[in-house]
Formats: sequence, structure tokens, C-alpha cells
Amino acid sequence: MISSPTHVYPVIWYEGSVLLIDQTHLPAEYAFVEIHRCEDMAQAIKTMIVRGAPAIGIAAAYGMYLGAREIETHDREQFLSQLEQVAQMLRTTRPTAVNLFWAIARMLKTAYETIGTVEEIRQVLLTTAQTIQTEDLQTCQAIGDRGLELLPKTPAQLNLLTHCNAGALATAGYGTALGVVRSAWSCGRLSRLYADETRPRLQGAKLTAWECVQEGIPVTVITDSMAAHCMQQGMIHAVVVGADRIAANGDTANKIGTYSLALVAKAHDVPFYVAAPVATIDFAIATGREIPIEERDPVEVYQIDDTILTPAGVEFYNPAFDVTPAHLITAIITEHGAFSPSQLQQELQHKYVA
Amino acid sequence: MISSPTHVYPVIWYEGSVLLIDQTHLPAEYAFVEIHRCEDMAQAIKTMIVRGAPAIGIAAAYGMYLGAREIETHDREQFLSQLEQVAQMLRTTRPTAVNLFWAIARMLKTAYETIGTVEEIRQVLLTTAQTIQTEDLQTCQAIGDRGLELLPKTPAQLNLLTHCNAGALATAGYGTALGVVRSAWSCGRLSRLYADETRPRLQGAKLTAWECVQEGIPVTVITDSMAAHCMQQGMIHAVVVGADRIAANGDTANKIGTYSLALVAKAHDVPFYVAAPVATIDFAIATGREIPIEERDPVEVYQIDDTILTPAGVEFYNPAFDVTPAHLITAIITEHGAFSPSQLQQELQHKYVA
Repeated sequence: MISSPTHVYPVIWYEGSVLLIDQTHLPAEYAFVEIHRCEDMAQAIKTMIVRGAPAIGIAAAYGMYLGAREIETHDREQFLSQLEQVAQMLRTTRPTAVNLFWAIARMLKTAYETIGTVEEIRQVLLTTAQTIQTEDLQTCQAIGDRGLELLPKTPAQLNLLTHCNAGALATAGYGTALGVVRSAWSCGRLSRLYADETRPRLQGAKLTAWECVQEGIPVTVITDSMAAHCMQQGMIHAVVVGADRIAANGDTANKIGTYSLALVAKAHDVPFYVAAPVATIDFAIATGREIPIEERDPVEVYQIDDTILTPAGVEFYNPAFDVTPAHLITAIITEHGAFSPSQLQQELQHKYVA
Repeated sequence: MISSPTHVYPVIWYEGSVLLIDQTHLPAEYAFVEIHRCEDMAQAIKTMIVRGAPAIGIAAAYGMYLGAREIETHDREQFLSQLEQVAQMLRTTRPTAVNLFWAIARMLKTAYETIGTVEEIRQVLLTTAQTIQTEDLQTCQAIGDRGLELLPKTPAQLNLLTHCNAGALATAGYGTALGVVRSAWSCGRLSRLYADETRPRLQGAKLTAWECVQEGIPVTVITDSMAAHCMQQGMIHAVVVGADRIAANGDTANKIGTYSLALVAKAHDVPFYVAAPVATIDFAIATGREIPIEERDPVEVYQIDDTILTPAGVEFYNPAFDVTPAHLITAIITEHGAFSPSQLQQELQHKYVA
């Protein structure tokens, strides 16, 4: 176990397998799924047992190791060729979060660059997955602290609002957007977190609320459409959300509803912050228009547990993400500091991106 | 039964009692509740068996008659005094929709102005309730036709978006916002209706979708937070919503989420129409700031059927309505034509309001 000021770890390496908190069962049940094979990891990512851009990256990194462990050869070339197939399978799980592709690419690069036996490459892959996880925890804590510096100075205690879950559950264990919330809470700067319930999958009502309750952070759940009204009433001092992929110009893909929230924040002059590791920035794409948006099963919209909400004969549209244009974003908070969207390339691309 | 081009009547006067479609059970079950006493009508309004501003007005008018029927006196003064108590009970059911107060006031005024025996006053009250219902149906059809004239001329077939249910179920039987949709559909000008599911009570997913299916109108249900993304993709040509109360300056109270939708429509230059009878306009209040906003039980946010969505220890906020400022509204469509919010007083107050 990693030591940190939070108690929630969505991905745990334990005695030769990966334990995932089954996030599809929270908050009713806090249980783990044990993953031994990379196919099962791919399935867990697809079905959102593990979700959240950085956590998906960590899970995929361990998935690469699990896949590497299954490859039955001592021949380096054969091993690398089969590892490419493992990578390809993991890449097809979810299209939007760039951390998935980033982690897989880093694992592959490590394999190619490691000199030694297949067994030695396997060991380095495990160490690399663990490093990705440890680094993410440190990254989140840095994001939290950088975000804290950026928050409005008045009032002394702030009401923050977030969408979806960019928390411990979405990362190695401290959170990006919720990292900022945690840092604000631990320094006495948080009055209350407002959590959008985040339809259709309700990650705000289920996961963000659960995380806050674990740590005693005061949290009020609202439906997504109430955020504008809350801002109109002066109840919200700043919005902090995570990101699944950020284009070079700062356009940000995040959970569906983030764009709507950014528009209403702008209309009320409420600062709108995106908190994400530098690994979330995809400098290979110029604008958000190039980010593929995953469309998920309509069942997420029309069914909650056993309840069918809609009559037969209705159609559905279920985009999982939307793109918030850079001009609506006050700042992007990374582990290396906070930047306006237009500063990303100049400040980050050449200094921190390989 | 009233004859009209729609098949859904939420309030029916039938053999001495009122039949209400139990809207809390739609779309799973299409059943009626039989109401004999005005206390039961008050309860039905409170629990949203009947809902929607004009339908609440009609239900309350019949509630006044049912109350009048129960008063055991032949003395006119005693009768009127007890009728005032009936009115007061019905007024406390829901605070936001002005049609409730308007219908009760009209019934009371009728009672005071009727010369004759108590039994004759009772008969006039029943006739007046029926008149309010018939007038509302004609009003909705007029709103539909006026709205149709106003819709964008291109493309030939439009995608409209609505929030909540301002349909047949919310009125005598044709709808205000859905009246415009129905008129567009019957003239071949509608390609598809997008229906916000409308959390927390899901009137869009349940009621609007159900109404559309009854009449073969193509309908796509989205979560409330998807509307902005749909507009960004160019999928929506105009928004049409209903209203629970409109201030003299055009500020409009409607289902929570309407304000958010108006902001995102404005950001995309998508026309935003409010469709409502003149009776919804409250010329006694200058701006939306004076409209009382009902706050409902948090159970609506945290529970869907038997499923509790959130963990224990969370707080909730559940405003049932929000106020859309007039400057976000392209036009208010009434039975007497469509007006910009700033024209309301000049064009309507003195001509059509008693």
C-alpha cells in the first residue's frame, strides 16, 4: 500500500495481482475485484469498474504487465511482438482519455529500451507500472497544492463545485479536481463542495459524494441542471473539474456536462479551473475538434438499476464526453503549476513532455 | 370528453368526480385516480399526480367546486366564508405556478359575483371550472399555431429541444411548448424532438417521451447536461419550454434547469422560446426576483424507485424551479401572439388581463 493522506486507492498491486475497487457498485458496496489477466483488465476498463483518466492509465500499465506475464516465450522479438498485441487490445477499451494511450506507450517504450532477458523486461514493466502509479499520486498532490494557491482569496472559506469524479477513485489516490478540494479542505479554505450528480452514470452522486463522506468533507449533491441556479444565487465561488484529454490549444474533453457547466460559469464570472496532470495534454492534436468522443450504450440513459425510466419507442443519444473550448477555461492546473490555456505549449510542451 | 387532435387529457370531469392521470406512474402505467373531495385534490397537486402550471390551475378549479359541494349550508355568507377556506387550502399546495392562484381567484370571483342560491352558485362554479378547462385547450392550440409561425424558416424540418413536460399532460390537453411541437409535427416542419430527461423527477424522460410516443412524434431523450454539446454539434435549431410564472418584465420561472438551458442556447445563438398562456404572466410582480421558488423533498434527488443513489452523510439542495432572465428569451409565445419580453406589458396587460 502507498502511504498518503487519503484512504481510497482504486488500483492496488497485491501479491501478484491487481485489486480494483469495483466502482460500479459504489456507494452501496465497497468491494474489490481481483484481476489476474490482461483481458480482464481490458474488460474492467470498458465496463468502468475502473474509470477516470489517470486511473485508467495506471490500470492499463498494470494490464500491460499482466499481458507480458502471460506471453510464453524467451525470445525477445516474439515477446515484443506479442506485447504489441496486448497494447492494441488495451487501446481499444476507451477512446477519449489520453492517459490510456500515454501509459501504454510508456510501457511499450520501456520494453523496447530494456536490455536483458524477457524475464528481466517483465520485471522492469512491473516496476514501471508501479512508478506510473507512484508518480500519479505525487502529481495529484502537487496539483492540489498548485490549485490551492490559485483559488479566489475571498471569501476565506469557499464553496467549490465539481462535475463527475476526478478524485482519488479516478487517479492513484488523491485526485485532480478533488485533489484541489482536498488541499483546500486540509488548509481550512473549503466551506463546502457542491457535487453535480453527473448523469447518466451518476459519478458525482455516487463516487465524489462517497469520497467526501470518507474524509468528512461537507458535500451537497445537486442535479446537473441546478448548477446555473446555484451560481445565480451566489452560492458557488469556483468550479474545478478534471480532464480526459486536453488539446494543445487548451480545449478540454471531460465528462459530458462539463461544457455546459463551463458556459454557465462564464455567464456568472465564476472561475472555471481544469485540474489535470501534464500527461493529459495531447500536444499531438491542435484543437478539441480532433478529440474522439466516445458514445456509450443508451442503457446508461434509460435505466437506473432495475428501473426503466422511459417508454418503449424512444431514441437516445449518449455521448460520454464533451469538449470545453479553451476560452471558457480560467486556468489549467498541472503538477508544474497553473497556466492559461494559451500558455500550455510554451510553458509545458518542451520542458516536460518527452 | 373534449374533442381535440390529441389523445391525452390529464384532468377529466366524469359523472360527478374528477379523473386524474396518475403522472407519478407514467410511463410504466397509464392509470387514473378518481378524486371526490377537495382535500384529495390538494394532495394530488402536492404529490404531483397532476402537475404542469395550466393543469394545476384546472385541477384547482375543479378542487374549488368539489370543496363547494361539501359545504353544508344554504346561507350565502357562510358558504362564501367556507369557500375562502377551501381556496386557502388549495393555495398552499404549490407556491410557484401562478395559474394555481389565478384559477382559484377566478373561481372565488365567480362565486361572489353570482346572484342566486348556494346551489346555483355551486352550479356556476362547476361550469366555470369546465370553461377554464375548455379555454385552456383552445389557448394551447392557439399557442401551438402562433409558435409555428415563429419557428426558424430553415431548415425545412427542424430539430426542437424541450425541457420538462409542458405538454398535453401539463395542460387541458394539447400542451404549450409541446403544443408548438405538435403544430410543427402536424405541418411537417418537425424532424425530431430532443427531450431533456429533466432531473430530478424526469418529466422529460417519462412524460414528454411518453406523449410523443403516443402520437408517433420522433423523440430522442438526452440527459440535461448533454444539451450544450448537442447545440455545439449543430443538432438543435430552437428550444421551446413552458413557464410556471412570468414576471411583468418577462423573467420566467420554469422547471429547474430551464435557466441553464437558456444560457447555453444563448451561447450558441439558438432561439429560446417560452410558450405559455397569458394567465401565466403575473403582472403584479415586476421581476423574477419576486417569484417564490419551491424547494422540494431531497428524496427526489437521492432516490429513484428503490435505488438510493448517494451514500449516507451527504446533503442535498432541491429547488424545483429557476428563473430565466428576460434577456435570454427570444420570444414569449401566448395565445394572442408572440412577444419579446419587453413588449409584454404594453401588448398584453391592458388588452387581455382583467
